[in-house]
Amino acid sequence: MSLVAALAGDAEIAAQFAEGAEIAAILFFEAELAKAQGALGIIDPEAARQIAAAAQAFEPDMDVVRHGMARDGVAVPALVKALRVAIGEPHGQMLHHCATSQDAIDTGLMLRMKRVLQVLENRLSTLLHDLAQLSEEQGSTRLMAHTRMQAALPFSAADKLASWCGPLQSHCSRLHELAQSLPVQLGGPIGTGSSFGPRYRELRAALAARLDLRDSAPWHSDRTPILDIAQSFALLGGTLGKIGLDIALMAQADTVRLAGGGTSSAMAHKQNPVGAELLIALGRLNAGLLGTLAQSMLHENERSGAAWTLEWLVLPQMAEASGAALLQGSTLLHGLRFQAAR
Amino acid sequence: MSLVAALAGDAEIAAQFAEGAEIAAILFFEAELAKAQGALGIIDPEAARQIAAAAQAFEPDMDVVRHGMARDGVAVPALVKALRVAIGEPHGQMLHHCATSQDAIDTGLMLRMKRVLQVLENRLSTLLHDLAQLSEEQGSTRLMAHTRMQAALPFSAADKLASWCGPLQSHCSRLHELAQSLPVQLGGPIGTGSSFGPRYRELRAALAARLDLRDSAPWHSDRTPILDIAQSFALLGGTLGKIGLDIALMAQADTVRLAGGGTSSAMAHKQNPVGAELLIALGRLNAGLLGTLAQSMLHENERSGAAWTLEWLVLPQMAEASGAALLQGSTLLHGLRFQAAR
Amino acid sequence: MSLVAALAGDAEIAAQFAEGAEIAAILFFEAELAKAQGALGIIDPEAARQIAAAAQAFEPDMDVVRHGMARDGVAVPALVKALRVAIGEPHGQMLHHCATSQDAIDTGLMLRMKRVLQVLENRLSTLLHDLAQLSEEQGSTRLMAHTRMQAALPFSAADKLASWCGPLQSHCSRLHELAQSLPVQLGGPIGTGSSFGPRYRELRAALAARLDLRDSAPWHSDRTPILDIAQSFALLGGTLGKIGLDIALMAQADTVRLAGGGTSSAMAHKQNPVGAELLIALGRLNAGLLGTLAQSMLHENERSGAAWTLEWLVLPQMAEASGAALLQGSTLLHGLRFQAAR
Amino acid sequence: MSLVAALAGDAEIAAQFAEGAEIAAILFFEAELAKAQGALGIIDPEAARQIAAAAQAFEPDMDVVRHGMARDGVAVPALVKALRVAIGEPHGQMLHHCATSQDAIDTGLMLRMKRVLQVLENRLSTLLHDLAQLSEEQGSTRLMAHTRMQAALPFSAADKLASWCGPLQSHCSRLHELAQSLPVQLGGPIGTGSSFGPRYRELRAALAARLDLRDSAPWHSDRTPILDIAQSFALLGGTLGKIGLDIALMAQADTVRLAGGGTSSAMAHKQNPVGAELLIALGRLNAGLLGTLAQSMLHENERSGAAWTLEWLVLPQMAEASGAALLQGSTLLHGLRFQAAR
Repeated sequence: MSLVAALAGDAEIAAQFAEGAEIAAILFFEAELAKAQGALGIIDPEAARQIAAAAQAFEPDMDVVRHGMARDGVAVPALVKALRVAIGEPHGQMLHHCATSQDAIDTGLMLRMKRVLQVLENRLSTLLHDLAQLSEEQGSTRLMAHTRMQAALPFSAADKLASWCGPLQSHCSRLHELAQSLPVQLGGPIGTGSSFGPRYRELRAALAARLDLRDSAPWHSDRTPILDIAQSFALLGGTLGKIGLDIALMAQADTVRLAGGGTSSAMAHKQNPVGAELLIALGRLNAGLLGTLAQSMLHENERSGAAWTLEWLVLPQMAEASGAALLQGSTLLHGLRFQAAR
Repeated sequence: MSLVAALAGDAEIAAQFAEGAEIAAILFFEAELAKAQGALGIIDPEAARQIAAAAQAFEPDMDVVRHGMARDGVAVPALVKALRVAIGEPHGQMLHHCATSQDAIDTGLMLRMKRVLQVLENRLSTLLHDLAQLSEEQGSTRLMAHTRMQAALPFSAADKLASWCGPLQSHCSRLHELAQSLPVQLGGPIGTGSSFGPRYRELRAALAARLDLRDSAPWHSDRTPILDIAQSFALLGGTLGKIGLDIALMAQADTVRLAGGGTSSAMAHKQNPVGAELLIALGRLNAGLLGTLAQSMLHENERSGAAWTLEWLVLPQMAEASGAALLQGSTLLHGLRFQAAR
Repeated sequence: MSLVAALAGDAEIAAQFAEGAEIAAILFFEAELAKAQGALGIIDPEAARQIAAAAQAFEPDMDVVRHGMARDGVAVPALVKALRVAIGEPHGQMLHHCATSQDAIDTGLMLRMKRVLQVLENRLSTLLHDLAQLSEEQGSTRLMAHTRMQAALPFSAADKLASWCGPLQSHCSRLHELAQSLPVQLGGPIGTGSSFGPRYRELRAALAARLDLRDSAPWHSDRTPILDIAQSFALLGGTLGKIGLDIALMAQADTVRLAGGGTSSAMAHKQNPVGAELLIALGRLNAGLLGTLAQSMLHENERSGAAWTLEWLVLPQMAEASGAALLQGSTLLHGLRFQAAR
Repeated sequence: MSLVAALAGDAEIAAQFAEGAEIAAILFFEAELAKAQGALGIIDPEAARQIAAAAQAFEPDMDVVRHGMARDGVAVPALVKALRVAIGEPHGQMLHHCATSQDAIDTGLMLRMKRVLQVLENRLSTLLHDLAQLSEEQGSTRLMAHTRMQAALPFSAADKLASWCGPLQSHCSRLHELAQSLPVQLGGPIGTGSSFGPRYRELRAALAARLDLRDSAPWHSDRTPILDIAQSFALLGGTLGKIGLDIALMAQADTVRLAGGGTSSAMAHKQNPVGAELLIALGRLNAGLLGTLAQSMLHENERSGAAWTLEWLVLPQMAEASGAALLQGSTLLHGLRFQAAR
């Protein structure tokens, strides 16, 4: 772990991107796929039962999985192979039946993203509640509005807070809607669904329902769902970064006081608006990462290992930065006291 | 004009960002604001009539406007001053009544963005129609699907085309919905609406209706609407870039032939997939610009000249790149002939 | 032209990227290549003379050139074809002998970049001189240093100015060194130089000397020289953006006063630090564009139309933003008056 | 740890950014600063001895350090406080004498960056050696050069390899020069050096010599050194990404064969060029991150917590991506076999 993680990390969000969580989500996909295939008679119901039971209990040898990841660029082949052995014959062969690694990985990501989005939405709801309370308690304080870095006209703390809450409320709805509409991925080797046979659509709908995801055509090479999640992170990070900028500027002009400001190794009199600065840094990070991630829209052919891997390197840190910004924003606002402008 | 504009430019979209179009949109905002204020009795209806008539006919001295832009960072103060002189007293003073530059500029941008989005939507609809026809005519051609840059399994040209049409259809809906929901901007000097008096909400709704924009709380310092437009450009550019990549790769493997490929100054035998490469370049451009633009979410205080100016430097080129990609994509697809994989 | 060009444009730099300048640079390359080939006996000296004379006087039909650009992705084939006709037989065929479009275009870009870098260096030298004078005149003014957005300890305007001059001096040296070391491009169709025959190295060195460029192995698919130029633009823009941030913050705290601040359409009392905000916007633009341009390092095969075209869309605007920042920075500093901190 | 770390991680580089390594580097700075101050008589030589001995042996309570990091935005205040207690009075007060957190952190970063650059340089030297051997062994294989995604003219594997080695050799020199010229940071609370008294320059030079860093004026608010390191990472990642692109394209056309290609969960016949794709992903990541990091050039005032924190979030991953690309590139090239073009 790096030191900066103590400042800018978010253990709860990071946990969703740890290898254990990723493997659990993949195994859950495999179990539910088998159950859905069993229920439709695509595979033997007994195979489905055994696969589901084994997948749920499976604790893979992580060295084998990591080695497979490094060799294959995805962990699924090694994981499926090991789990098939654990299931044994004849049912092991029905594990991952007709599916491809991308089905398991993208669906697994959506399952974890749902939790991430829900965590963020919950935190943001609380933050909005705190802002409303702040407005109730301190909203009448007279402040000076600033435009183009110059004092403009007087307004109230309630006005300032309203300018923060508006976009945050809209982002909160966006997080909620995204979480409700994350798509299942089920397309088979080349993303056409044809490997699953004549009842493909039915199977896909059943799987989506089991996983509480949205039924969707395969999006193997169309990464719009990823970009829309990333956009929500960049917007959230951007608005929290804007709040950080506002607070840092007000702290400099002494129109807000902050509890628990950072101490300095050289100047004992200082109270640094560390939380506000962190919001700015996280906002700029997410903004830049959005542009980097958007390069992965250029996803060549029916599956691009290059564009896909880029997503794995960028999206998790956007999620964690968003989560950390919410944690930090909450702390910052709890200790914030507006000072009437002179 | 640069040479690259002959390749990657889009005169129709660019025209919406020329100074004439920007001023016309601002003048239209001022005229309709006056009419809305006149209708509500906020200003003298006669003033409203004269302002609207003058604004409609006004041809400002562009040197004065440009000089004002350079001095003030916005053209509105110089433009309003000159138009007030043209209207004369007593009604001139009622021009731009209670409004601020950002109201005129952001609303003017939304008016032009509506046209941009509609042009893009129309082109994309046509492209989708062309793709459907291509699928009808050549869809049965057997191709090889590729995953991770390797031949995977055979599929048909119809399958390939379906993987292009899916995201394009979704982008087309997005462009349509965006165009229908672009927000009016009316907040006054510090974005609270208070300058407009007790009938502010009524006035704002009336103005939005006149301009065929969505009534909205002021978004002076919340740039989500800008980012959502930019996201649509990055998604569109990204999918067209993906199609460019696919075509360039198929051209290299001789599984597509292209009409009108580029000639080479050194190798007479070559047919370069210039249009496909251009789609890739435009897609990567828009991806990167999205991240640059997202920095402007960190919009300090009640109005940030810095963050706002950054938008003006980035968003127009994203729009033009999107338009150029659609023009080029259309040409490319018209001359495309799938070759059965050997 | 857009309105924002009146604020953020730089006509002198932009002129180097206009089609006339690009074509002139290409024609100059062709003339000097012919002369170098003539001097070495690679082509008939009489052919060299006629080619050089014709290239110098050539005024191509721009519609033909633009049409060629749109068809071929580069203007050179159409331009060479037209110039060959103008030269006539037998010597016309010796124009562009053994060369490829990229040789002409990249070398032509370097010729223009040299002028761009020199313009920037000259402006930056003047700015540094102005800063030195400012330090002499106002350096003893007591200011407050700020760290982490909080008042830290008192220091002098001279200290503040020194923190600006240090990096600017280093950037000035960098611009100078870059301008002195821009590489010629001469590699032929596939960048190996082999098309030019046994005296290739001699020819390349001679051409570089004629063009006052650095002799260099072909860099057709290695875009390091482009990235190093872009890096200098991002650094320059970044430091000027930092100065803009500092000035905007000091203006807000009234520790600097600015001449000619922007006026507001709504608030007559305001003096907006428009120039300072513009520096911030241009700095953030160049930062983001650097990351977008860096994608073009992934230049596939022996020549990538996609990656190359991306450069043309990004590098010129970085150059112009750098130039505009220097123009604006100069104006800003001329009107700057430090106010002693209270 | 995430699964993707098994593919795209680099444990050796990552170790330089772990909290233990960061604290060790800070403690080393403090020890050498005390020794330099002791040798110059700025502090009591006995204090210097005790400080150096204690710093060398110090094992801080990491919970305290992390808590300090979270509160202060930097770990130095908490670390210095704890170490002062360990040293005891009267000498403890002389620890970190006249210095500021940024001196310790930036210098500590440069100490670790030196090791990072050296590791990368060593790996790149080995890679260049391997490429030379590959050229010797397989250089005569006839390949087809491709320009603009089309077959152009035949050339040899040696030509192809030369186009890879040229930029890599230049990057190798750059890494070497950077490692030799990393600057010490010693500026005190507001970066002017004045806190250190009349012998400041002498002290700074002595400290730089002790740490084997370059003596340099303070660069607290001038982040050029950080950007130049990042540029070297983006160039290295970009060229390796270009090689990845070339190899993936050649693998698709069967003009290279790769040892140990990735297996597929759905298609047993496939050999995926996983390493080549990873190089592309890492190259695109570093390109985008360069643009994100460049935003931190806009470092307001005498120290920006926001801009500085952004560096900590971006630079380490660029270093690790560069290292991973070299590891992966080496494996990839070892198993590469050119196939003569048909």
